[in-house]
Amino acid sequence: MTQSETLELSLQLLRQPSVTPVDHTCQDIMAKRLEKIGFNIENMRFDDVDNLWARKGTKAPVFCFAGHTDVVPTGNLDAWNSDPFVPEIRDGKLYGRGSADMKTALAAMVVASERFVKKHPIHKGSIAFLITSDEEGPSINGTVKVIETLEARNEKMDWCLVGEPSSTNKLGDIVKNGRRGSLNANLTVKGKQGHVAYPHLAVNPIHSFSKALAELCETVWDNGNEYFPATTFQVSNINSGTGATNVVPGTLNTLFNFRYSTEVTAEELKARTLEILNRHNVEYEISWTLSGLPFLTPVGELVNAAKSAILNVTGVETELSTSGGTSDGRFIAPTGAQVLELGVLNATIHQINEHVNVDDLEPLAEIYEQILENLLA
Amino acid sequence: MTQSETLELSLQLLRQPSVTPVDHTCQDIMAKRLEKIGFNIENMRFDDVDNLWARKGTKAPVFCFAGHTDVVPTGNLDAWNSDPFVPEIRDGKLYGRGSADMKTALAAMVVASERFVKKHPIHKGSIAFLITSDEEGPSINGTVKVIETLEARNEKMDWCLVGEPSSTNKLGDIVKNGRRGSLNANLTVKGKQGHVAYPHLAVNPIHSFSKALAELCETVWDNGNEYFPATTFQVSNINSGTGATNVVPGTLNTLFNFRYSTEVTAEELKARTLEILNRHNVEYEISWTLSGLPFLTPVGELVNAAKSAILNVTGVETELSTSGGTSDGRFIAPTGAQVLELGVLNATIHQINEHVNVDDLEPLAEIYEQILENLLA
Repeated sequence: MTQSETLELSLQLLRQPSVTPVDHTCQDIMAKRLEKIGFNIENMRFDDVDNLWARKGTKAPVFCFAGHTDVVPTGNLDAWNSDPFVPEIRDGKLYGRGSADMKTALAAMVVASERFVKKHPIHKGSIAFLITSDEEGPSINGTVKVIETLEARNEKMDWCLVGEPSSTNKLGDIVKNGRRGSLNANLTVKGKQGHVAYPHLAVNPIHSFSKALAELCETVWDNGNEYFPATTFQVSNINSGTGATNVVPGTLNTLFNFRYSTEVTAEELKARTLEILNRHNVEYEISWTLSGLPFLTPVGELVNAAKSAILNVTGVETELSTSGGTSDGRFIAPTGAQVLELGVLNATIHQINEHVNVDDLEPLAEIYEQILENLLA
Repeated sequence: MTQSETLELSLQLLRQPSVTPVDHTCQDIMAKRLEKIGFNIENMRFDDVDNLWARKGTKAPVFCFAGHTDVVPTGNLDAWNSDPFVPEIRDGKLYGRGSADMKTALAAMVVASERFVKKHPIHKGSIAFLITSDEEGPSINGTVKVIETLEARNEKMDWCLVGEPSSTNKLGDIVKNGRRGSLNANLTVKGKQGHVAYPHLAVNPIHSFSKALAELCETVWDNGNEYFPATTFQVSNINSGTGATNVVPGTLNTLFNFRYSTEVTAEELKARTLEILNRHNVEYEISWTLSGLPFLTPVGELVNAAKSAILNVTGVETELSTSGGTSDGRFIAPTGAQVLELGVLNATIHQINEHVNVDDLEPLAEIYEQILENLLA
């Protein structure tokens, strides 16, 4: 019976303790199933990361399922109601690390492909899988390297569906058709240590930074656009002081982050930040880390294929969103592919007692299958 | 010979490892000398603190030498060039913990009193000593308690000379005729923790505090007056953040300090601070510690007696100052006494290899003696 197909493969994957960057045979399990239905299998191991590139067909257009077999650490095992790597169903929920993020989606992708290929042994274009074990880690030897390899041999994908848990309240209520960029800064404000009783002999970095900080917090960086909310600036950490109440500290350190829309560039944000610091005569050192460029897949073939599949299977009118954290989609979008994220509910990801609704698994496989139908049948 | 009298008593006191709040017989050594010249000795021990109240004479006006026998800890012993409690003279400098702050002044006070009483067995008013072993510690069971005791029996002093090291470049170049008040605040700004990608679900305390902080740093609290520099506001510590770059912190903690003139009161500073926080809609908890009220001894008998003694002994035109840290003078001034601080150079106090110029000891005793001459002869 069909229900058990997606659930059974999910259980098989969930039993593998594949804490990032360890794949623990998950990709093998998937590859064996895909090989049987005509996929060409390529294992691409980079350093300690396993990656799978599987493709059925040689023609364009290429539809690719993307995802990851690695999971975040379990956290305190005593806090789990069941072993995170012994999946268990209680009250209609499937518990286990990776159940939401994102092994059930991987199972649904494989089952959907099997069913689609069975119905359409001869189909348009190609179906591909890009699976990594490095999404929850540093993201250096995973999707980035696979994409580099594909680009180097001019192998392109047209549509990419990332199985990240995008749903919020009901399966399919939200799909992510883009993500904001993420730019981090590590700022050190330089002052001169001294005694609070003699402030004229010291330079207090908290004071010299205060006006620039207030202005950075108040600045409207852009107003977003149809797809993106306005760019946000958030200070995550600020630290200065020796602990003593009578010492003017010599330095201040702060970390801040921009989540930015396609209305600005990272270079513009850097320049505007430095202009504010300079105008307020702040003495500083700053280093930047661009952790993700923004990307956007406007309404088109992939979005429409997903929307109609979701509506058809679940009755839900899906909503497009670019909010939330980053995903490997940011590495795929720059190749020119349309990228969409669609998966189960994300309420418990990365948490103790991560779980997913058992009743969502089969509908997810059906949605994925119908997307294939809509694009490649 | 006279030089050795002040030096010898200094050496005797410096050999006592009287790390706060331990007196280690220093007050006994002083009391024995004072008793011999007609002082009435009262030991006032409060909890773990030794205090000495010694008085010669019963009439007004009362001139009091005030000071402390306790010293700050040595710090790293390996960094000292000689044992901090085995005083040693090298190149005309006397090394030892407490040599500047303030055992040589205590020795000079005793020697000056001996010489004055020898010359003037019958003198005006009274001479007193208020000596504690709690100046470098919490300042709870020292001068505060002695003053309470004296006030309770209506025993007043008219002039008080505190032997704190007030000199900067040359002996007597600076005397302190007052001190600013010191008001500390411990402020916790309350926010709501969240993810930097979803700032609308969080309340970032760094952001909500930023404008108030900028305003606090910019505010002119007063313009000081003839004796006091303008009140200063300094943030000594600010800390917020979990360490993670993607987490909006839930709270911010900051410590700040006012050094304030007699142009404002602590209550006014508190009220103005709260007004700024409230106007910027900061959610906060704040606790205040008043570590010292400001006090001032305007030019008058005591200041003039000290100025002429310094000029006479050293040729230096002394300068009045209210700058610097707090001292026990803040507990004595509220009784109505004129309070002045006058002692050796303060360049090495609280430091490794604390020292004082040997050649300053005898002149200091002479200055103290001439002040007695000027006021009580």
